[in-house]
Amino acid sequence: QELLCIFGTGDLGRTLGQCLLQTGYRVVYGSRRPHSCGPLPQGAQVMSHDAAAQSASLVFVCIHRQNYGFLESLASGLKGKVLVDVSNNLKKDLYPEANAEYLQRLIPGAHVVKAFNTLSAWALQNGPSDANRQVYMCGNNAEAKQAVSEIATKLSFTVLDRGSLSAARELEDFPLQLFPEWRLPLRLAVGLTAFFFFYLLIRDIISAYVEEGKDISFRIMVSLANKVFPIVSLIMLTLCYLPGVIAAFLQLYRGTKYKRFPDWLDRWMLCRKQLGLLALGFASLHVLYTLIIPIRYYVRFRLSAITISEIRENRTTKFDTTMAWRTDSYYSVGILGFGLYVLLGITSLPSISNALSWREFSFIQSKLGYLTLFICTFHTYLYGWDKFLRVSSYKWYTPPGYMLSLVLPSVVLVLKLLLLLPCVDRSLTRIRQGWE
Amino acid sequence: QELLCIFGTGDLGRTLGQCLLQTGYRVVYGSRRPHSCGPLPQGAQVMSHDAAAQSASLVFVCIHRQNYGFLESLASGLKGKVLVDVSNNLKKDLYPEANAEYLQRLIPGAHVVKAFNTLSAWALQNGPSDANRQVYMCGNNAEAKQAVSEIATKLSFTVLDRGSLSAARELEDFPLQLFPEWRLPLRLAVGLTAFFFFYLLIRDIISAYVEEGKDISFRIMVSLANKVFPIVSLIMLTLCYLPGVIAAFLQLYRGTKYKRFPDWLDRWMLCRKQLGLLALGFASLHVLYTLIIPIRYYVRFRLSAITISEIRENRTTKFDTTMAWRTDSYYSVGILGFGLYVLLGITSLPSISNALSWREFSFIQSKLGYLTLFICTFHTYLYGWDKFLRVSSYKWYTPPGYMLSLVLPSVVLVLKLLLLLPCVDRSLTRIRQGWE
Amino acid sequence: QELLCIFGTGDLGRTLGQCLLQTGYRVVYGSRRPHSCGPLPQGAQVMSHDAAAQSASLVFVCIHRQNYGFLESLASGLKGKVLVDVSNNLKKDLYPEANAEYLQRLIPGAHVVKAFNTLSAWALQNGPSDANRQVYMCGNNAEAKQAVSEIATKLSFTVLDRGSLSAARELEDFPLQLFPEWRLPLRLAVGLTAFFFFYLLIRDIISAYVEEGKDISFRIMVSLANKVFPIVSLIMLTLCYLPGVIAAFLQLYRGTKYKRFPDWLDRWMLCRKQLGLLALGFASLHVLYTLIIPIRYYVRFRLSAITISEIRENRTTKFDTTMAWRTDSYYSVGILGFGLYVLLGITSLPSISNALSWREFSFIQSKLGYLTLFICTFHTYLYGWDKFLRVSSYKWYTPPGYMLSLVLPSVVLVLKLLLLLPCVDRSLTRIRQGWE
Ligand SMILES: Cc1cc2nc3c(=O)[nH]c(=O)nc-3n(C[C@H](O)[C@H](O)[C@H](O)COP(=O)(O)OP(=O)(O)OC[C@H]3O[C@@H](n4cnc5c(N)ncnc54)[C@H](O)[C@@H]3O)c2cc1C
Ligand SMILES: Cc1cc2nc3c(=O)[nH]c(=O)nc-3n(C[C@H](O)[C@H](O)[C@H](O)COP(=O)(O)OP(=O)(O)OC[C@H]3O[C@@H](n4cnc5c(N)ncnc54)[C@H](O)[C@@H]3O)c2cc1C
Ligand SMILES: Cc1cc2nc3c(=O)[nH]c(=O)nc-3n(C[C@H](O)[C@H](O)[C@H](O)COP(=O)(O)OP(=O)(O)OC[C@H]3O[C@@H](n4cnc5c(N)ncnc54)[C@H](O)[C@@H]3O)c2cc1C
Ligand SMILES: NC(=O)c1ccc[n+]([C@@H]2O[C@H](COP(=O)([O-])OP(=O)(O)OC[C@H]3O[C@@H](n4cnc5c(N)ncnc54)[C@H](OP(=O)(O)O)[C@@H]3O)[C@@H](O)[C@H]2O)c1
Ligand SMILES: NC(=O)c1ccc[n+]([C@@H]2O[C@H](COP(=O)([O-])OP(=O)(O)OC[C@H]3O[C@@H](n4cnc5c(N)ncnc54)[C@H](OP(=O)(O)O)[C@@H]3O)[C@@H](O)[C@H]2O)c1
Ligand SMILES: NC(=O)c1ccc[n+]([C@@H]2O[C@H](COP(=O)([O-])OP(=O)(O)OC[C@H]3O[C@@H](n4cnc5c(N)ncnc54)[C@H](OP(=O)(O)O)[C@@H]3O)[C@@H](O)[C@H]2O)c1
Ligand SMILES: CCCCCCCCCCCCCCCC(=O)OC[C@H](COP(=O)(O)O)OC(=O)CCCCCCCCCCCCCCC
Ligand SMILES: CCCCCCCCCCCCCCCC(=O)OC[C@H](COP(=O)(O)O)OC(=O)CCCCCCCCCCCCCCC
Ligand SMILES: CCCCCCCCCCCCCCCC(=O)OC[C@H](COP(=O)(O)O)OC(=O)CCCCCCCCCCCCCCC
Ligand code: HEM
Ligand code: HEM
Ligand code: HEM
Repeated sequence: QELLCIFGTGDLGRTLGQCLLQTGYRVVYGSRRPHSCGPLPQGAQVMSHDAAAQSASLVFVCIHRQNYGFLESLASGLKGKVLVDVSNNLKKDLYPEANAEYLQRLIPGAHVVKAFNTLSAWALQNGPSDANRQVYMCGNNAEAKQAVSEIATKLSFTVLDRGSLSAARELEDFPLQLFPEWRLPLRLAVGLTAFFFFYLLIRDIISAYVEEGKDISFRIMVSLANKVFPIVSLIMLTLCYLPGVIAAFLQLYRGTKYKRFPDWLDRWMLCRKQLGLLALGFASLHVLYTLIIPIRYYVRFRLSAITISEIRENRTTKFDTTMAWRTDSYYSVGILGFGLYVLLGITSLPSISNALSWREFSFIQSKLGYLTLFICTFHTYLYGWDKFLRVSSYKWYTPPGYMLSLVLPSVVLVLKLLLLLPCVDRSLTRIRQGWE
Repeated sequence: QELLCIFGTGDLGRTLGQCLLQTGYRVVYGSRRPHSCGPLPQGAQVMSHDAAAQSASLVFVCIHRQNYGFLESLASGLKGKVLVDVSNNLKKDLYPEANAEYLQRLIPGAHVVKAFNTLSAWALQNGPSDANRQVYMCGNNAEAKQAVSEIATKLSFTVLDRGSLSAARELEDFPLQLFPEWRLPLRLAVGLTAFFFFYLLIRDIISAYVEEGKDISFRIMVSLANKVFPIVSLIMLTLCYLPGVIAAFLQLYRGTKYKRFPDWLDRWMLCRKQLGLLALGFASLHVLYTLIIPIRYYVRFRLSAITISEIRENRTTKFDTTMAWRTDSYYSVGILGFGLYVLLGITSLPSISNALSWREFSFIQSKLGYLTLFICTFHTYLYGWDKFLRVSSYKWYTPPGYMLSLVLPSVVLVLKLLLLLPCVDRSLTRIRQGWE
Repeated sequence: QELLCIFGTGDLGRTLGQCLLQTGYRVVYGSRRPHSCGPLPQGAQVMSHDAAAQSASLVFVCIHRQNYGFLESLASGLKGKVLVDVSNNLKKDLYPEANAEYLQRLIPGAHVVKAFNTLSAWALQNGPSDANRQVYMCGNNAEAKQAVSEIATKLSFTVLDRGSLSAARELEDFPLQLFPEWRLPLRLAVGLTAFFFFYLLIRDIISAYVEEGKDISFRIMVSLANKVFPIVSLIMLTLCYLPGVIAAFLQLYRGTKYKRFPDWLDRWMLCRKQLGLLALGFASLHVLYTLIIPIRYYVRFRLSAITISEIRENRTTKFDTTMAWRTDSYYSVGILGFGLYVLLGITSLPSISNALSWREFSFIQSKLGYLTLFICTFHTYLYGWDKFLRVSSYKWYTPPGYMLSLVLPSVVLVLKLLLLLPCVDRSLTRIRQGWE
């Protein structure tokens, strides 16, 4: 049974020690106060830093970087040993050099390996199932890395080697990331939402106030929201499929797949998943807003008012079969579209996309994805019906929101149809097969 | 640091090279055009095929099978080396022998290992989290497999050894699969949907047209769909639990668990998960269709018409408490059933079913599953109430759809009750414990 | 190719053998009836126990514990061999000692390793993707454990070493667990539900019956349920965030993070995930119950009755803009809250929480979690509006349910606000950084 040393009896030190002990290692702690350092895992020894380091060939340095200073005095004792730097910083670019490089500079004789810093003491403590099982590692000495990698594997982590110690900075930035790949899609979503909100606010509510003096501002909360959300959803869904079409035309034009795409296209393609999931969120909101329509006070009032006026004026409206067909159809088509939408979402869950073969994944995301786009577009066309013919739809000479939302999807669907033409499809396939 | 060779600078070659370099291997490419082969990962060398192969003991052949021909000329240089065949085909049974076997035939002196072909260059590029982490491998030489397996493990893949090279065909078919286990359930779902659609179309809509000349075809889109979907869902839910009951009776009859089930039963049992998930999809559609009922034009029109006629004819309907109890009950029971249904779905997510112990999984899927079936059946009985007594329910002498849908669930529930009788349960448990 | 021995040709023996054969091991079975033991995986040999054990250095004992007796007679032949005990029991504490310890006692000369007992033969058979990939292992001999661990790794399991054979009991209890961490939250949920159910039953329904003789018992199924569920959901959501606040105040009061929390607080903090998920379930029920309101017979009847009475009495109600704003607002806020709620749920899926860095996870669970709590509380305040001013709200001097439900969330939100004050926040951060 190998003996490992841990410097620092803090949260991470203790948790790591416990895991190591459980796996069959022996553990010795190095602490400033070996005799008063609080509850440690059962079976571990505590000594001064110096004594602890002596007995082991590998030391986990579970101390905050700002306290590394004292380690310099141990430099001779640590010569030739493997030092595992687990530290993180509170902010990016707080220090000029990475913590691990700083440690290496302090103790040049040791083999510093950066690892384990992406784990959380809390998560480690609460059993393995909940925590992230990937350990990123980097370091300059291959044997040192091998030793750390073996320990990590025994602790049942998956090790991902990231090369030399110069990658330490990158590794130290991992735990500070806050959804980097969601930023662009989120900004886009906020932008689109704001645009359509103000556009429709002016068109529907302010115009009514200015022209007829009617205060229908209460419509903002539900009616307006239930226009903005589906419109943004449809546009963002389209933006998932537009880059694929652009890429295809670019490849056709260039006649080869071996030229890199322009940078903006690359970045766009890499955030389609996030775009799509946000679009699904907006679509879900649209569905919930639609479903609460009938419990709204305003709706109930209006329906009752219609009935009352019909009786008072002794009018009889006839049942309009076309209307019944049309509305039922667009509800039905919407439900179908939403079902497919949710299916796309479910297959993006990592555990499911991992279980799918490449062909299955792209069948769902690409084929069924286009189907979803088509159905959602169709739903909107059915909803619009012949509104585009009526002049009253163009208040203040602006088209209603749903018309704006239909432009992009229609274009993308037509372009995709072009790409599906046998002759175009054939040359595209050949290009994608590596033919030049 | 070991040196590995990659033939072919295409998509997969480049991506694989990048991963290998990141993990600390050195990489040399073999290319037809070493000097004009586009952007390669930093740190890699490019040479002619011959030169590249010489320096390494392991070669990844990242070339399409139809271009393997030229490798024959390198046969002598590749003697004793490990050749990793990563190729896939566009279709099944395109060639008489597996690609890897063909490669082995071309270069008999090399040790061909089939591996990595189920990965996707695209997914590999976009970080490890999204891609499938399983590498299937087969080959005739144990050491060669060991070498490949080590590399794959370092790249943090999980290796699944599938035996000798004769398994290559199977491995090459993996990426071509398109949901094989969903086929039977999907066909069943389509069949049932079609049957009930036409049955109800004739019974409800065509009969109304023929007998009363009323055109209520608009009902197809929502009213009819909202009968077909729940009915199919209920039947498919039952079909998840029927095979378990049949198996139990078979085991009771045979008195042993060591005889294989008939093939059809085995196949049926293996697609219960898919059956259940499709049933959940149909149930979700039922719920959404139910929830949009009150925004339908037809429903609003009818409700308003009833109110109007009540006033015009000066009728007063009394509040019917039984009706209120009954309808509220069946909604409530339906919601409960749907909640459990979704719970069954959530626990089939691979990441969750993996976190559950065998006992927990079967508690949810089996115990709560039967509860779900019971509750959904009860919901339908409550919905039907005393309709079965009224002659008008049997238009054209056919029973309404919900009655048909109740037959199977009722039978399964009764059979399950039989199996739960202490005496039956005891002998079944003994048989399942291996007692003979 | 190594030869492994399996005792017992039952379900697990056969399945394990098949997996081993597929991975390239050779397998020999030891059976009581080598010549009539049913279908075995292709390529395996069968012999008597004695003969089979002789040829291999590692034996999987795939036999039920109650049949271990006969192994004693093989003790001499099994000397020095590794025996893998895979057995489980039907109940906890059925036997005084763990099965593996019993086996070790029977054959003192062998090296018993407990492993593989958490797997399920059924799941193993149906491919690797569906089954739990973690193998817990314990044993007294390090080399024996190493041997077993290698086999498990080759079978592509993740091995978790749990130390010496004295941990066998714990491992044998794993498969018998039935959601231990859900018990407390479930009990709480049931308790709260029962309390509010009876409270509201008495207050709303029985009081109406007693005071006015009106039978509105039909309201139990939906109206009452739709009060109980959201109330319980809101309270349980609060209970997820209360312990964090208590812990913070405790740390502030103690001035250090290195003292253990009281036991009840620890246990409470460890079941917040389950509390939260149950709360989400209740919230989903609230949403579904809300959405079916307009199809209820009672609601339709009442709406129609109001319209009719308005006409008969020739009354005209005016549209109340405040009412429209208020109701639309609380629906809208509720939807937003529910959306965030679902987001919290989605990020607790193991596959997603694993993909998130610690900072991302706590951003969603902690920051967005508080936001969710705030929004849901706000929704309830908006729903209550000025009801608290009306005397009629306090039937039988009891406050309506929603008021009770608002107490705890309001307190928690205020306390959290206190903690966010810069001065308090600063010292808390310092304490959590290890400063003393
Ligand atoms: C709700 C929702 C969820 C979405 N989730 C995802 C998602 O999880 N991942 C994603 O990339 N896009 C996702 N998208 C975006 C979009 O559906 C896909 O990018 C889609 O593949 C684009 O189709 P295309 O034909 O335009 O792609 P093209 O550019 O023509 O080709 C894309 C090809 O890339 C390949 N590919 C992309 N990602 C993977 C992967 N992870 N594994 C294997 N192969 C891959 C597929 O072969 C696909 O055919 C989602 C969209 C929505 C609405
Ligand atoms: C929404 C929904 C989702 C479903 N998801 C699944 C699913 O993910 N997997 C599935 O098999 N069925 C699934 N089903 C089908 C059905 O619920 C189960 O097959 C159920 O276990 C049958 O119960 P039974 O008592 O008839 O089974 P029996 O034949 O009496 O016994 C089946 C036994 O097999 C065992 N078993 C089956 N699968 C596994 C597994 N993956 N891991 C461990 N043990 C297992 C269990 O011990 C279970 O008790 C699903 C059904 C629905 C409606
Ligand atoms: C629908 C729903 C789902 C929920 N799912 C979860 C869940 O999956 N896990 C959970 O713990 N709570 C879950 N909760 C409960 C609650 O949201 C969290 O416990 C929340 O973090 C408490 O916030 P706090 O600021 O009070 O926590 P504090 O006690 O102040 O701090 C808790 C800290 O612990 C850390 N932490 C907790 N769990 C993990 C983990 N798995 N990985 C990394 N760090 C962690 C985080 O850093 C968090 O900041 C859920 C609640 C709801 C409503
Ligand atoms: N906590 C996590 O979840 C986590 C996750 C990843 C990485 N990390 C990293 O792990 C390291 C430790 O984190 P932690 O949460 O365990 O911190 P901590 O609980 O604050 O513990 C730090 C330990 O360092 C020692 N120490 C403090 N001041 C010192 C000084 N001036 N000189 C020498 N030693 C001193 C102390 O141990 P003694 O009293 O025994 O000397 C103390 O227990 C940090 O670098 C952190 O970035 C932590
Ligand atoms: N792409 C994937 O996602 C993926 C996934 C799994 C398996 N695979 C398999 O990996 C292999 C390569 O796929 P790929 O997508 O990388 O293909 P690719 O991009 O088309 O690249 C193929 C490479 O093979 C070389 N080549 C082409 N024609 C040749 C010829 N006549 N003679 C010799 N070499 C020739 C070229 O490299 P040089 O110009 O340098 O000679 C070319 O870059 C295929 O067998 C494929 O089935 C691919
Ligand atoms: N099935 C599972 O999913 C699973 C999962 C985890 C652990 N386990 C454990 O694995 C062990 C075997 O389970 P199993 O499901 O495979 O049981 P099983 O199907 O009942 O098989 C037990 C085998 O033990 C042998 N056996 C029966 N009575 C015996 C006796 N009196 N003396 C000697 N051998 C006897 C028989 O093999 P021969 O006729 O060839 O002698 C029989 O096939 C149990 O300890 C169980 O707890 C099972
Ligand atoms: C209108 C709404 C429609 C909602 C659809 C509900 C989902 C039902 C269909 C699921 C199909 C999944 C296909 C996956 C492809 C595949 O092969 O996936 C393969 C995977 C892995 O399979 P193996 O592990 O068996 O190899 O299969 C799965 O595990 C699928 C799990 C599906 C989980 C469903 C989760 C339900 C979540 C609750 C949603 C509730 C929505 C409520 C709305 C009102
Ligand atoms: C009426 C609809 C009801 C919807 C129910 C919502 C889900 C709430 C209950 C979840 C219970 C999960 C039990 C899992 C068993 C277990 O122990 O599972 C164990 C796992 C793993 O636990 P550990 O990783 O902690 O070991 O726990 C989980 O991670 C459970 C995650 C649950 C994720 C919920 C996802 C919500 C998806 C959104 C659905 C929205 C539906 C909206 C409808 C209108
Ligand atoms: C009002 C209801 C709102 C419903 C919200 C729907 C979900 C849309 C937003 C998803 C956001 C996920 C953020 C995860 C954080 C992250 O970065 O997560 C990171 C992970 C992992 O990413 P990588 O694997 O790319 O690294 O990303 C994901 O995979 C997210 C998968 C999301 C799956 C959505 C499942 C939809 C289930 C169906 C729900 C239907 C509800 C219907 C109600 C009527
Ligand atoms: C359950 C499924 C769905 C139902 C029941 C549904 C229903 C409706 C209804 C009733 C409207 C009219 C709203 C109004 O009067 O303002 C509408 C509009 C719209 N829907 Fe859907 N829908 C569904 C799904 C979807 C989906 C998945 C999309 C895709 C993004 C979508 C896109 C739109 C758009 C763009 C509009 C026009 C908004 C406007 O400008 O008024 N719908 N839908
Ligand atoms: C949210 C939960 C649910 C609600 C609110 C609900 C509501 C309803 C309603 C209103 C009907 C009558 C439809 C009509 O008038 O045609 C109905 C019928 C029916 N429901 Fe549900 N239901 C729910 C869940 C379920 C589930 C989970 C199942 C299981 C499969 C189910 C099975 C059925 C069946 C078989 C019918 C009879 C269909 C027919 O022939 O008309 N329901 N339900
Ligand atoms: C889609 C989202 C939501 C909608 C449409 C919604 C709608 C409603 C409605 C209509 C009521 C009044 C019920 C009645 O008349 O008895 C209500 C009450 C309430 N809601 Fe929500 N809600 C939503 C989400 C939530 C969420 C996420 C919570 C958080 C737990 C919540 C908590 C409450 C509470 C505590 C009450 C008061 C219950 C009572 O005592 O009557 N709601 N909600």
